[in-house]
Amino acid sequence: MSPPGEPELVKHLRARAGRNSDVVLGIGDDAALLRVPPGQLLVVSTDTLVSGIHFPAHTAVADIGWKSIAVNLSDMAAMGAQPRWASLSLALPQLERSWIDAFLDGFLAAAQVYDVSLIGGDCTRAALPVISVTIHGLVPPEYALRRSGARVRDHLWLSGNTGAAAAGLMLVQSGADSSSAASQSALQRLQRPTPRVALGIALRDMATAALDISDGLLLDCQRMCGASGCAADIELSRLPISAALLELADGERCRAEEWALTGGDDYELLFAAVPEAESDLLALSQRMGLPLTRIGSFVAGDGQVQVLQDDGRQRQFARTGYDHTQ
Amino acid sequence: MSPPGEPELVKHLRARAGRNSDVVLGIGDDAALLRVPPGQLLVVSTDTLVSGIHFPAHTAVADIGWKSIAVNLSDMAAMGAQPRWASLSLALPQLERSWIDAFLDGFLAAAQVYDVSLIGGDCTRAALPVISVTIHGLVPPEYALRRSGARVRDHLWLSGNTGAAAAGLMLVQSGADSSSAASQSALQRLQRPTPRVALGIALRDMATAALDISDGLLLDCQRMCGASGCAADIELSRLPISAALLELADGERCRAEEWALTGGDDYELLFAAVPEAESDLLALSQRMGLPLTRIGSFVAGDGQVQVLQDDGRQRQFARTGYDHTQ
Repeated sequence: MSPPGEPELVKHLRARAGRNSDVVLGIGDDAALLRVPPGQLLVVSTDTLVSGIHFPAHTAVADIGWKSIAVNLSDMAAMGAQPRWASLSLALPQLERSWIDAFLDGFLAAAQVYDVSLIGGDCTRAALPVISVTIHGLVPPEYALRRSGARVRDHLWLSGNTGAAAAGLMLVQSGADSSSAASQSALQRLQRPTPRVALGIALRDMATAALDISDGLLLDCQRMCGASGCAADIELSRLPISAALLELADGERCRAEEWALTGGDDYELLFAAVPEAESDLLALSQRMGLPLTRIGSFVAGDGQVQVLQDDGRQRQFARTGYDHTQ
Repeated sequence: MSPPGEPELVKHLRARAGRNSDVVLGIGDDAALLRVPPGQLLVVSTDTLVSGIHFPAHTAVADIGWKSIAVNLSDMAAMGAQPRWASLSLALPQLERSWIDAFLDGFLAAAQVYDVSLIGGDCTRAALPVISVTIHGLVPPEYALRRSGARVRDHLWLSGNTGAAAAGLMLVQSGADSSSAASQSALQRLQRPTPRVALGIALRDMATAALDISDGLLLDCQRMCGASGCAADIELSRLPISAALLELADGERCRAEEWALTGGDDYELLFAAVPEAESDLLALSQRMGLPLTRIGSFVAGDGQVQVLQDDGRQRQFARTGYDHTQ
């Protein structure tokens, strides 16, 4: 009796995964053994992607791999954590080596950029692809960024810009011509999001609260306000709208703004900081070559987020974002 | 604009989950924050359960909850680790509060027995239930039990007995009358397996290798042999067969033995120990009130497992266990 398929797959995964020196034992046993340096908190987050919900069913497999770990890395960024280890659960209709290899091409490319080791997980069959990643990082206790730390008078900040992934999804769903530079960049944002890990670490002693925007700027801002026991006013004129996004919205600023505020899948950081931190944040932005924009302020209230136009009136939206439980 | 569904669910989960003092921040932020005591390795394992593959589609929801964490706790037992924290990914056709509550009834009951905190995870929609749990535990570096440590001349040991879950699955699938005490006990073993956490910790300085039997005694024994670079001989006459199992096999010992050796879903520990440890292991068995049985020995070879009858002949089986990748 010789051992069948699974050990081959495990051996293959172990060979591809590599491992950093803090991985005492990686893929292949009942569990991984990891060395946590003293004086650091362990930071753990899980995100699951389901075909047809979190990515279009025909997404390139390597892009699914990239996104599966990128959305989890984004949670580490939102906590100010240094990501270290990821475990991966793959439930797939067929456990084909070619699919798994293409998936790993994207997954491990992102893992390498952010110096994360794949330490284990499992593979099983299911009617449609369900991919669950648990990511582990480290942060000194006093520096962990929570979503609950925003206070009235803090400024509300945004990294980069938002809306491109929503525009990209629209392109995929409509089957529209996507050869323009603006389209290509939107598709890239949808399929290969950039988690703001270095920014999260840099914000450890500058932000009072942070989260990453996965379900829409407004919805996630409401969540930060709810956790912090305050409300927020967003000044629409301060919201960064890229030229590419405006082009994809056929020049209709209103439509671009809706994507940027409610589209989701952005993986930018939304964070709070005391007003006195403004110059330091602008210097950080310059140093990192990453736009950081003050888009509003926290005010007294109970979780509400208002979007204010220049004329002082409030802009209303049909929905604030994407709730995966509904 | 008021925050919708997801925060309610998160609040509900947080209220039910409770948390131990080593959980600095639990459910509700982008990630959990956990305190790892100095001098311990972090032990991480992921197991995924798919409806119709890892449990019959009509399994009671609370039992699915129990099993989802129990199979992961079993991995901690196999490493000699003290389990501490679990994160949970639920992909479900409908995210009904009643389903989630029934699931948590079982999941949290097991978590409480083993003093594990539910620290986070996510809920999303999918065509059929896919449940992924990542469990975290602690072990002093020198005491971690690996599957690769067995050496030629070590004895092969088994906790409890095996085969009951396979008999239970047969009962479910055949729709046979299951009112007898033997049937009820087999169904209990299938639906509410007991991870051998205390045994794993007790074996830290007594076993040379360990794993938990999830896919079948023979198949998992092959895996241990393959990892350890040796082979094993199992003496069929030493294999513990419970009276209940024999009853379910209509008194056919052959059939009971096949369940016990190839059935899987047992979550007993299979471990190696030097011959000199025998009396200590028997004393441990007495102390714990848990049968520990020497069922064979490790011999020179390359991953083969032989099952020897009293007459010295080898018993052959059509399959050695259950490979979820095939």
